[in-house]
Amino acid sequence: MLGRAWFVTIEGIEGAGKSTCMAVLRRFFEARGEPVVSTREPGGTELGERIRELLLSHSHEGMTLKSETLLMFAARAEHLAQVIEPALAAGRHVLCDRFTDATYAYQGGGRGLPADQIQRLEEWVQEGRRPDLTLFLDVPVDTGLARAAQRSAPDRFEREQAEFFERARRVYLDRARSEPGRIHVIDASQPLEAVAGLVEQVLQQVIGND
Amino acid sequence: MLGRAWFVTIEGIEGAGKSTCMAVLRRFFEARGEPVVSTREPGGTELGERIRELLLSHSHEGMTLKSETLLMFAARAEHLAQVIEPALAAGRHVLCDRFTDATYAYQGGGRGLPADQIQRLEEWVQEGRRPDLTLFLDVPVDTGLARAAQRSAPDRFEREQAEFFERARRVYLDRARSEPGRIHVIDASQPLEAVAGLVEQVLQQVIGND
Repeated sequence: MLGRAWFVTIEGIEGAGKSTCMAVLRRFFEARGEPVVSTREPGGTELGERIRELLLSHSHEGMTLKSETLLMFAARAEHLAQVIEPALAAGRHVLCDRFTDATYAYQGGGRGLPADQIQRLEEWVQEGRRPDLTLFLDVPVDTGLARAAQRSAPDRFEREQAEFFERARRVYLDRARSEPGRIHVIDASQPLEAVAGLVEQVLQQVIGND
Repeated sequence: MLGRAWFVTIEGIEGAGKSTCMAVLRRFFEARGEPVVSTREPGGTELGERIRELLLSHSHEGMTLKSETLLMFAARAEHLAQVIEPALAAGRHVLCDRFTDATYAYQGGGRGLPADQIQRLEEWVQEGRRPDLTLFLDVPVDTGLARAAQRSAPDRFEREQAEFFERARRVYLDRARSEPGRIHVIDASQPLEAVAGLVEQVLQQVIGND
Protein backbone atom coordinates (compact mmCIF):
# COMPACT_ATOMS: atom_id res chain seq x y z
CA MET A 1 0.00 0.00 0.00
CA LEU A 2 1.20 3.49 -0.76
CA GLY A 3 2.08 5.68 2.19
CA ARG A 4 1.10 9.31 2.32
CA ALA A 5 2.65 11.44 -0.43
CA TRP A 6 4.08 14.64 1.00
CA PHE A 7 4.06 18.01 -0.74
CA VAL A 8 7.08 19.79 0.73
CA THR A 9 8.17 23.29 -0.24
CA ILE A 10 11.36 25.15 0.53
CA GLU A 11 11.37 28.89 0.88
CA GLY A 12 13.99 31.50 1.55
CA ILE A 13 15.48 34.68 0.18
CA GLU A 14 18.42 34.57 -2.21
CA GLY A 15 21.44 32.74 -0.82
CA ALA A 16 19.54 31.00 1.97
CA GLY A 17 20.73 27.55 0.90
CA LYS A 18 17.65 26.18 -0.84
CA SER A 19 19.60 23.91 -3.21
CA THR A 20 21.43 22.23 -0.32
CA CYS A 21 18.13 21.78 1.48
CA MET A 22 16.48 20.27 -1.61
CA ALA A 23 19.28 17.69 -1.75
CA VAL A 24 18.78 16.81 1.92
CA LEU A 25 15.07 16.35 1.36
CA ARG A 26 15.62 14.14 -1.68
CA ARG A 27 18.08 11.95 0.20
CA PHE A 28 15.70 11.68 3.17
CA PHE A 29 12.93 10.18 1.05
CA GLU A 30 15.22 8.16 -1.20
CA ALA A 31 16.77 6.54 1.87
CA ARG A 32 13.27 5.26 2.62
CA GLY A 33 13.03 3.93 -0.92
CA GLU A 34 10.22 6.33 -1.78
CA PRO A 35 9.86 8.06 -5.15
CA VAL A 36 10.34 11.80 -5.22
CA VAL A 37 9.68 14.52 -7.78
CA SER A 38 11.95 17.54 -7.41
CA THR A 39 10.70 20.71 -9.04
CA ARG A 40 10.74 24.48 -8.72
CA GLU A 41 8.75 27.66 -9.14
CA PRO A 42 8.31 29.62 -11.21
CA GLY A 43 8.85 26.79 -13.68
CA GLY A 44 8.58 23.05 -13.45
CA THR A 45 6.89 22.60 -16.83
CA GLU A 46 7.97 23.55 -20.33
CA LEU A 47 5.51 26.46 -20.37
CA GLY A 48 6.41 27.36 -16.79
CA GLU A 49 10.10 27.58 -17.63
CA ARG A 50 9.29 29.92 -20.53
CA ILE A 51 7.27 32.06 -18.12
CA ARG A 52 10.18 31.96 -15.67
CA GLU A 53 12.45 33.39 -18.37
CA LEU A 54 10.01 36.28 -18.86
CA LEU A 55 9.83 36.89 -15.11
CA LEU A 56 13.58 36.88 -14.47
CA SER A 57 14.68 38.66 -17.64
CA HIS A 58 16.20 42.10 -17.34
CA SER A 59 14.39 43.22 -20.45
CA HIS A 60 11.17 43.40 -18.43
CA GLU A 61 12.33 45.76 -15.68
CA GLY A 62 9.14 47.81 -15.93
CA MET A 63 6.74 44.87 -15.63
CA THR A 64 3.60 45.80 -13.70
CA LEU A 65 3.00 44.13 -10.38
CA LYS A 66 -0.30 42.61 -11.47
CA SER A 67 1.28 41.20 -14.62
CA GLU A 68 4.13 39.70 -12.60
CA THR A 69 1.68 38.11 -10.17
CA LEU A 70 -0.55 36.75 -12.93
CA LEU A 71 2.48 35.21 -14.65
CA MET A 72 3.49 33.54 -11.38
CA PHE A 73 0.04 32.00 -11.05
CA ALA A 74 -0.13 31.07 -14.76
CA ALA A 75 3.05 29.04 -14.30
CA ARG A 76 1.66 27.62 -11.05
CA ALA A 77 -1.64 26.51 -12.61
CA GLU A 78 0.31 24.58 -15.23
CA HIS A 79 2.69 23.18 -12.63
CA LEU A 80 -0.13 21.92 -10.43
CA ALA A 81 -2.05 20.33 -13.29
CA GLN A 82 0.85 18.72 -15.09
CA VAL A 83 3.36 17.89 -12.35
CA ILE A 84 2.31 18.32 -8.74
CA GLU A 85 -1.20 16.83 -8.70
CA PRO A 86 -0.34 13.82 -10.92
CA ALA A 87 2.75 13.05 -8.80
CA LEU A 88 0.86 13.22 -5.51
CA ALA A 89 -1.97 11.15 -6.97
CA ALA A 90 0.59 8.51 -7.95
CA GLY A 91 2.00 8.43 -4.42
CA ARG A 92 5.18 10.37 -5.17
CA HIS A 93 6.46 12.98 -2.77
CA VAL A 94 6.81 16.43 -4.37
CA LEU A 95 9.71 18.65 -3.31
CA CYS A 96 9.33 22.16 -4.62
CA ASP A 97 11.88 24.98 -4.52
CA ARG A 98 9.55 27.90 -3.77
CA PHE A 99 5.77 27.99 -3.99
CA THR A 100 2.97 30.39 -3.09
CA ASP A 101 4.54 31.60 0.16
CA ALA A 102 7.11 33.22 -2.17
CA THR A 103 4.34 35.13 -3.93
CA TYR A 104 3.18 36.52 -0.58
CA ALA A 105 6.79 37.35 0.32
CA TYR A 106 7.98 38.89 -2.96
CA GLN A 107 4.95 40.29 -4.75
CA GLY A 108 3.20 40.95 -1.44
CA GLY A 109 5.87 42.03 1.06
CA GLY A 110 8.55 43.00 -1.43
CA ARG A 111 6.45 44.91 -3.91
CA GLY A 112 3.40 45.78 -1.83
CA LEU A 113 0.55 43.80 -3.39
CA PRO A 114 -2.13 43.38 -0.69
CA ALA A 115 -2.24 39.82 0.65
CA ASP A 116 -5.99 39.44 0.06
CA GLN A 117 -5.45 39.94 -3.68
CA ILE A 118 -2.86 37.15 -3.70
CA GLN A 119 -5.17 34.99 -1.62
CA ARG A 120 -7.98 35.27 -4.14
CA LEU A 121 -5.68 34.03 -6.92
CA GLU A 122 -4.33 31.29 -4.64
CA GLU A 123 -7.83 30.02 -3.89
CA TRP A 124 -8.86 30.10 -7.54
CA VAL A 125 -5.73 28.45 -8.95
CA GLN A 126 -4.93 25.97 -6.19
CA GLU A 127 -8.40 25.19 -4.91
CA GLY A 128 -7.66 23.14 -1.79
CA ARG A 129 -4.01 22.36 -2.54
CA ARG A 130 -1.47 23.69 -0.03
CA PRO A 131 1.97 22.35 0.95
CA ASP A 132 1.94 19.80 3.75
CA LEU A 133 5.29 21.03 5.04
CA THR A 134 7.27 24.17 4.29
CA LEU A 135 10.84 24.78 5.36
CA PHE A 136 11.68 28.46 5.56
CA LEU A 137 15.45 28.90 5.50
CA ASP A 138 15.94 32.11 7.39
CA VAL A 139 19.07 34.21 6.93
CA PRO A 140 19.79 37.86 7.56
CA VAL A 141 19.42 39.65 4.24
CA ASP A 142 23.05 40.78 4.03
CA THR A 143 24.29 37.22 4.60
CA GLY A 144 21.98 35.83 1.92
CA LEU A 145 22.81 38.50 -0.63
CA ALA A 146 26.55 38.10 -0.01
CA ARG A 147 26.24 34.36 -0.64
CA ALA A 148 24.10 34.87 -3.77
CA ALA A 149 26.51 37.46 -5.16
CA GLN A 150 29.37 34.96 -5.10
CA ARG A 151 27.34 32.55 -7.16
CA SER A 152 26.09 34.22 -10.35
CA ALA A 153 25.06 37.45 -12.01
CA PRO A 154 21.90 38.78 -10.36
CA ASP A 155 18.51 38.27 -12.08
CA ARG A 156 15.65 40.80 -12.09
CA PHE A 157 14.69 39.90 -8.51
CA GLU A 158 18.20 39.61 -7.14
CA ARG A 159 18.91 43.16 -8.31
CA GLU A 160 16.37 44.54 -5.85
CA GLN A 161 17.58 46.54 -2.88
CA ALA A 162 18.15 45.02 0.56
CA GLU A 163 14.97 46.63 1.90
CA PHE A 164 12.94 44.62 -0.64
CA PHE A 165 14.34 41.38 0.80
CA GLU A 166 13.83 42.60 4.37
CA ARG A 167 10.14 43.04 3.62
CA ALA A 168 10.01 39.59 1.98
CA ARG A 169 11.73 38.04 5.02
CA ARG A 170 9.26 39.69 7.40
CA VAL A 171 6.34 38.20 5.45
CA TYR A 172 7.91 34.73 5.60
CA LEU A 173 8.38 35.06 9.36
CA ASP A 174 4.83 36.37 9.86
CA ARG A 175 3.41 33.49 7.88
CA ALA A 176 5.49 31.00 9.87
CA ARG A 177 4.07 32.46 13.10
CA SER A 178 0.50 32.15 11.85
CA GLU A 179 0.97 28.62 10.43
CA PRO A 180 3.44 26.97 12.83
CA GLY A 181 2.19 23.50 12.01
CA ARG A 182 3.11 23.83 8.35
CA ILE A 183 5.97 26.33 8.15
CA HIS A 184 9.15 25.48 10.03
CA VAL A 185 11.74 28.23 10.37
CA ILE A 186 15.30 27.01 10.06
CA ASP A 187 18.25 29.15 11.06
CA ALA A 188 20.14 29.17 7.78
CA SER A 189 22.80 31.68 8.82
CA GLN A 190 25.05 28.81 9.90
CA PRO A 191 27.43 26.91 7.61
CA LEU A 192 25.56 24.76 5.09
CA GLU A 193 26.42 21.45 6.80
CA ALA A 194 24.82 22.68 10.02
CA VAL A 195 21.74 23.86 8.09
CA ALA A 196 21.50 20.46 6.42
CA GLY A 197 21.53 18.89 9.91
CA LEU A 198 18.67 21.13 11.07
CA VAL A 199 16.64 20.24 7.99
CA GLU A 200 17.23 16.56 8.67
CA GLN A 201 16.02 17.03 12.27
CA VAL A 202 12.79 18.70 11.16
CA LEU A 203 12.14 15.91 8.68
CA GLN A 204 12.64 13.22 11.33
CA GLN A 205 10.40 15.09 13.73
CA VAL A 206 7.57 15.96 11.31
CA ILE A 207 7.60 13.06 8.88
CA GLY A 208 9.44 10.46 10.92
CA ASN A 209 8.16 7.06 9.93
CA ASP A 210 4.93 8.37 8.43
CA MET B 1 -8.80 71.58 -25.65
CA LEU B 2 -8.61 67.85 -26.12
CA GLY B 3 -11.79 66.09 -27.21
CA ARG B 4 -12.82 62.83 -25.66
CA ALA B 5 -10.39 59.99 -26.28
CA TRP B 6 -12.23 56.86 -27.37
CA PHE B 7 -11.26 53.31 -26.43
CA VAL B 8 -12.61 51.23 -29.30
CA THR B 9 -12.26 47.46 -29.57
CA ILE B 10 -12.93 45.14 -32.48
CA GLU B 11 -14.06 41.61 -31.89
CA GLY B 12 -14.87 38.67 -34.09
CA ILE B 13 -14.00 35.07 -34.73
CA GLU B 14 -11.23 34.15 -37.17
CA GLY B 15 -11.77 35.52 -40.66
CA ALA B 16 -14.39 38.08 -39.61
CA GLY B 17 -12.47 40.97 -41.20
CA LYS B 18 -10.93 42.61 -38.15
CA SER B 19 -7.89 43.99 -40.01
CA THR B 20 -10.07 45.74 -42.60
CA CYS B 21 -12.18 47.14 -39.80
CA MET B 22 -9.12 48.40 -37.91
CA ALA B 23 -8.05 50.28 -41.06
CA VAL B 24 -11.50 51.88 -41.38
CA LEU B 25 -11.37 53.00 -37.76
CA ARG B 26 -7.90 54.46 -38.14
CA ARG B 27 -8.93 56.40 -41.24
CA PHE B 28 -12.08 57.68 -39.52
CA PHE B 29 -10.11 59.31 -36.71
CA GLU B 30 -7.18 60.39 -38.88
CA ALA B 31 -9.59 62.17 -41.23
CA ARG B 32 -10.54 64.25 -38.18
CA GLY B 33 -6.86 64.98 -37.58
CA GLU B 34 -6.94 63.08 -34.28
CA PRO B 35 -4.08 60.89 -33.01
CA VAL B 36 -4.72 57.19 -32.81
CA VAL B 37 -2.91 54.26 -31.22
CA SER B 38 -3.57 50.93 -32.95
CA THR B 39 -2.84 47.86 -30.89
CA ARG B 40 -3.91 44.28 -30.32
CA GLU B 41 -4.47 41.56 -27.76
CA PRO B 42 -2.96 39.40 -26.64
CA GLY B 43 0.11 41.57 -27.19
CA GLY B 44 0.64 45.28 -27.63
CA THR B 45 3.76 45.44 -25.45
CA GLU B 46 7.10 43.70 -25.70
CA LEU B 47 6.19 41.39 -22.80
CA GLY B 48 2.66 40.97 -24.17
CA GLU B 49 3.95 39.84 -27.55
CA ARG B 50 6.15 37.25 -25.82
CA ILE B 51 3.08 36.04 -23.92
CA ARG B 52 1.15 35.96 -27.22
CA GLU B 53 3.80 33.64 -28.65
CA LEU B 54 3.31 31.28 -25.70
CA LEU B 55 -0.47 31.40 -26.11
CA LEU B 56 -0.55 30.74 -29.85
CA SER B 57 2.30 28.24 -30.01
CA HIS B 58 1.51 24.67 -30.94
CA SER B 59 4.01 23.42 -28.41
CA HIS B 60 1.56 24.29 -25.63
CA GLU B 61 -1.42 22.24 -26.84
CA GLY B 62 -2.05 20.89 -23.35
CA MET B 63 -2.07 24.26 -21.58
CA THR B 64 -4.58 24.36 -18.74
CA LEU B 65 -7.52 26.70 -19.07
CA LYS B 66 -6.62 28.66 -15.93
CA SER B 67 -3.06 29.12 -17.14
CA GLU B 68 -4.29 30.33 -20.54
CA THR B 69 -6.66 32.79 -18.89
CA LEU B 70 -4.03 34.08 -16.45
CA LEU B 71 -1.61 34.63 -19.35
CA MET B 72 -4.28 36.60 -21.22
CA PHE B 73 -4.77 38.87 -18.21
CA ALA B 74 -1.01 39.13 -17.54
CA ALA B 75 -0.58 40.50 -21.07
CA ARG B 76 -3.63 42.73 -20.54
CA ALA B 77 -2.35 44.22 -17.27
CA GLU B 78 0.86 45.21 -19.02
CA HIS B 79 -1.01 46.52 -22.05
CA LEU B 80 -3.29 48.69 -19.93
CA ALA B 81 -0.47 50.14 -17.84
CA GLN B 82 2.02 50.76 -20.61
CA VAL B 83 -0.09 51.52 -23.68
CA ILE B 84 -3.83 51.96 -23.23
CA GLU B 85 -4.05 54.14 -20.12
CA PRO B 86 -1.16 56.45 -21.08
CA ALA B 87 -2.60 56.93 -24.59
CA LEU B 88 -6.10 57.74 -23.33
CA ALA B 89 -4.66 60.07 -20.69
CA ALA B 90 -2.79 61.91 -23.45
CA GLY B 91 -5.99 62.30 -25.47
CA ARG B 92 -5.20 59.65 -28.07
CA HIS B 93 -7.89 57.27 -29.27
CA VAL B 94 -7.02 53.63 -28.72
CA LEU B 95 -8.09 51.06 -31.33
CA CYS B 96 -7.61 47.53 -30.10
CA ASP B 97 -7.94 44.32 -32.10
CA ARG B 98 -9.61 42.11 -29.46
CA PHE B 99 -9.94 42.77 -25.74
CA THR B 100 -11.73 41.20 -22.77
CA ASP B 101 -14.89 40.28 -24.68
CA ALA B 102 -12.61 37.79 -26.47
CA THR B 103 -11.71 36.21 -23.12
CA TYR B 104 -15.39 35.71 -22.36
CA ALA B 105 -15.92 34.31 -25.88
CA TYR B 106 -12.90 32.00 -26.16
CA GLN B 107 -11.89 30.97 -22.65
CA GLY B 108 -15.48 31.30 -21.45
CA GLY B 109 -17.74 30.15 -24.29
CA GLY B 110 -15.16 28.21 -26.27
CA ARG B 111 -13.46 26.38 -23.44
CA GLY B 112 -16.07 26.53 -20.72
CA LEU B 113 -14.57 28.75 -18.02
CA PRO B 114 -17.48 30.18 -15.99
CA ALA B 115 -18.05 33.88 -16.75
CA ASP B 116 -17.95 34.92 -13.08
CA GLN B 117 -14.36 33.66 -12.83
CA ILE B 118 -13.37 35.80 -15.83
CA GLN B 119 -15.27 38.73 -14.37
CA ARG B 120 -13.28 38.61 -11.13
CA LEU B 121 -10.02 38.83 -13.07
CA GLU B 122 -11.45 41.60 -15.27
CA GLU B 123 -12.40 43.67 -12.24
CA TRP B 124 -9.05 43.16 -10.57
CA VAL B 125 -6.89 43.86 -13.63
CA GLN B 126 -8.93 46.57 -15.36
CA GLU B 127 -10.50 48.26 -12.36
CA GLY B 128 -12.98 50.64 -14.00
CA ARG B 129 -11.58 50.48 -17.53
CA ARG B 130 -13.92 49.12 -20.20
CA PRO B 131 -14.09 49.86 -23.95
CA ASP B 132 -16.27 52.83 -24.88
CA LEU B 133 -17.30 51.17 -28.12
CA THR B 134 -16.95 47.60 -29.35
CA LEU B 135 -17.59 46.45 -32.91
CA PHE B 136 -18.43 42.79 -33.11
CA LEU B 137 -17.93 41.57 -36.66
CA ASP B 138 -20.36 38.71 -36.92
CA VAL B 139 -19.92 35.97 -39.51
CA PRO B 140 -21.18 32.41 -39.66
CA VAL B 141 -18.40 30.18 -38.39
CA ASP B 142 -17.91 28.31 -41.69
CA THR B 143 -17.54 31.58 -43.61
CA GLY B 144 -14.99 32.92 -41.13
CA LEU B 145 -12.95 29.72 -41.02
CA ALA B 146 -12.93 29.44 -44.82
CA ARG B 147 -11.57 33.00 -45.07
CA ALA B 148 -8.97 32.38 -42.33
CA ALA B 149 -7.83 29.14 -43.98
CA GLN B 150 -6.94 30.98 -47.19
CA ARG B 151 -4.73 33.34 -45.26
CA SER B 152 -2.19 31.43 -43.19
CA ALA B 153 -1.39 28.25 -41.30
CA PRO B 154 -3.73 27.91 -38.31
CA ASP B 155 -2.45 28.82 -34.81
CA ARG B 156 -3.38 26.97 -31.61
CA PHE B 157 -6.80 28.68 -31.48
CA GLU B 158 -7.56 28.45 -35.18
CA ARG B 159 -7.07 24.68 -35.02
CA GLU B 160 -10.08 24.33 -32.76
CA GLN B 161 -13.22 22.68 -34.13
CA ALA B 162 -16.14 24.63 -35.57
CA GLU B 163 -18.21 23.99 -32.43
CA PHE B 164 -15.63 25.89 -30.37
CA PHE B 165 -16.15 28.97 -32.55
CA GLU B 166 -19.92 28.53 -32.49
CA ARG B 167 -19.82 28.74 -28.70
CA ALA B 168 -17.55 31.80 -28.89
CA ARG B 169 -19.89 33.45 -31.37
CA ARG B 170 -22.89 32.81 -29.13
CA VAL B 171 -21.11 34.51 -26.21
CA TYR B 172 -20.32 37.54 -28.35
CA LEU B 173 -23.97 37.78 -29.44
CA ASP B 174 -25.23 37.35 -25.87
CA ARG B 175 -22.92 40.07 -24.63
CA ALA B 176 -24.04 42.39 -27.44
CA ARG B 177 -27.64 41.83 -26.40
CA SER B 178 -26.88 42.66 -22.78
CA GLU B 179 -24.73 45.72 -23.59
CA PRO B 180 -26.35 47.20 -26.70
CA GLY B 181 -25.00 50.68 -25.97
CA ARG B 182 -21.40 49.50 -26.13
CA ILE B 183 -21.32 46.48 -28.42
CA HIS B 184 -22.50 46.96 -31.99
CA VAL B 185 -23.04 43.84 -34.08
CA ILE B 186 -21.96 44.23 -37.69
CA ASP B 187 -22.96 41.72 -40.35
CA ALA B 188 -19.53 40.74 -41.58
CA SER B 189 -20.68 37.96 -43.90
CA GLN B 190 -20.81 40.43 -46.78
CA PRO B 191 -17.87 41.39 -49.01
CA LEU B 192 -15.25 43.39 -47.12
CA GLU B 193 -16.10 46.70 -48.84
CA ALA B 194 -19.69 46.41 -47.64
CA VAL B 195 -18.50 45.57 -44.11
CA ALA B 196 -16.23 48.62 -44.19
CA GLY B 197 -19.26 50.73 -45.12
CA LEU B 198 -21.26 49.36 -42.16
CA VAL B 199 -18.39 50.10 -39.79
CA GLU B 200 -18.19 53.64 -41.13
CA GLN B 201 -21.94 54.06 -40.52
CA VAL B 202 -21.67 52.92 -36.91
CA LEU B 203 -18.78 55.31 -36.31
CA GLN B 204 -20.72 58.26 -37.76
CA GLN B 205 -23.74 57.34 -35.69
CA VAL B 206 -22.01 56.68 -32.36
CA ILE B 207 -19.04 59.03 -32.46
CA GLY B 208 -20.20 61.50 -35.10
CA ASN B 209 -18.73 64.88 -34.25
CA ASP B 210 -18.03 64.03 -30.63
